Amino acid sequence: VLNLIGLGLFDEKDISLRGLEVLKSSDKVYAEFYTNYFGADLKRLEELAGKPVTVLSRADVEERPEATVLKHAKSKNVSFLVSGDPLVATTHADIAGRAKALGVEVGVVHSSSVISAVAECGLQAYKFGKTTTLPFPQPNYEPTSPYEAIRGNQSLGLHTLVLLDVKATEGRYMSVGEGIDVLHSLEAKLSQKVFTEDTQIIGMARLGAPDRVIKAGKAEDLKKTDFGGPPHVLVVPGKMHFMEEEALSQYSG
Amino acid sequence: VLNLIGLGLFDEKDISLRGLEVLKSSDKVYAEFYTNYFGADLKRLEELAGKPVTVLSRADVEERPEATVLKHAKSKNVSFLVSGDPLVATTHADIAGRAKALGVEVGVVHSSSVISAVAECGLQAYKFGKTTTLPFPQPNYEPTSPYEAIRGNQSLGLHTLVLLDVKATEGRYMSVGEGIDVLHSLEAKLSQKVFTEDTQIIGMARLGAPDRVIKAGKAEDLKKTDFGGPPHVLVVPGKMHFMEEEALSQYSG
Repeated sequence: VLNLIGLGLFDEKDISLRGLEVLKSSDKVYAEFYTNYFGADLKRLEELAGKPVTVLSRADVEERPEATVLKHAKSKNVSFLVSGDPLVATTHADIAGRAKALGVEVGVVHSSSVISAVAECGLQAYKFGKTTTLPFPQPNYEPTSPYEAIRGNQSLGLHTLVLLDVKATEGRYMSVGEGIDVLHSLEAKLSQKVFTEDTQIIGMARLGAPDRVIKAGKAEDLKKTDFGGPPHVLVVPGKMHFMEEEALSQYSG
Repeated sequence: VLNLIGLGLFDEKDISLRGLEVLKSSDKVYAEFYTNYFGADLKRLEELAGKPVTVLSRADVEERPEATVLKHAKSKNVSFLVSGDPLVATTHADIAGRAKALGVEVGVVHSSSVISAVAECGLQAYKFGKTTTLPFPQPNYEPTSPYEAIRGNQSLGLHTLVLLDVKATEGRYMSVGEGIDVLHSLEAKLSQKVFTEDTQIIGMARLGAPDRVIKAGKAEDLKKTDFGGPPHVLVVPGKMHFMEEEALSQYSG
């Protein structure tokens, strides 16, 4: 059995009681920290599990899963600890698919995810459209899909959750300010007034952690705001109900 | 302090370790089970909390919160246990707003939610648009908003998570089959081929529970399928990537 266990939003305390139960009964435990920031150290996870936890790299998971996370899953009880709610990240859904193709039974233990936790900013979770991810700028690589996702959602009055790039091996987690720069650069290129300096947005940092930060304001103002450590996300609101505006106002200015 | 603690998807094991910690340190604990089905009994929650849990009705929460859940929150450590991830349901976001307006500090402990767990069907969580809820049919009340939400999402190629009505006090939880009937009735009225008998959809029951059921197929076929006990949800796919089609196929036929 391969059990995909969600670590939830921030640190080792965001795992569910069900997840902990499965973890403790596992023969072998793996974890990956390259898709998102993990707010605790490995030792605390190993204490919870009561056994060693093997940390896998992107290459381990995506290029040689048969030699790593899937190796013992046919005959043993294997757990794989992943950030947030499993199956939200494409890479975890892929592993589940590969396991099933090999005849390995797959179990999933859900946990908290930014996909629903984003409602903490005061916008209704039901009124979000497509979620998009901003990659770090690279020479000759500036995908326009995030801009198009926001524009499409706006056309239906829907809010957009904008996830920010993670390069964990380099210790780089895109900040709210860097995200705003990337969106301004796309606006300069595509000029459809989807994301201007006056666009009202929301920056959120370390959702689920005791020191989480939520700030609402104009893009140009939030760019100067220090949100502290990772992970960060951005929200670009669509049409707001007055109850949403009221809820959001507590995070303004 | 008012702590909104998410009970997560199904039963008492879906609370997070952080949620349990806050629960144990609370002076007074409330819970509500009218917004969704809870898969365990109250006693198990009370054993976890190590103290009595007071169950609140819709009227307690929505009409007289100052006399119930908010009564002691200014001076004491009060916890309010709610289904799924807090703040996703409008009623919980309202209580948070009311508490803050009274000068009560509000804490949130996130947990698993159908909003992200829906990815278990094989469709990408990022590609869902607006979430809609189907109400039980009533004389002279048949809102067209669910139909319009699906149509809007389809126009952008996005999937739709369709939540199904809950009338907990009457023990009524809308089933996949009943939801299909409501959508067919809307189609008959609005005739825009958004939801026909041939529409490929997904029915999901008891996500997060060990006996969860996921079935994909034509609306007319799923209507005859027995999904067992509540809660149920429906998914109407938008444009599917071949990886999504492949992942979904394991739940077909």
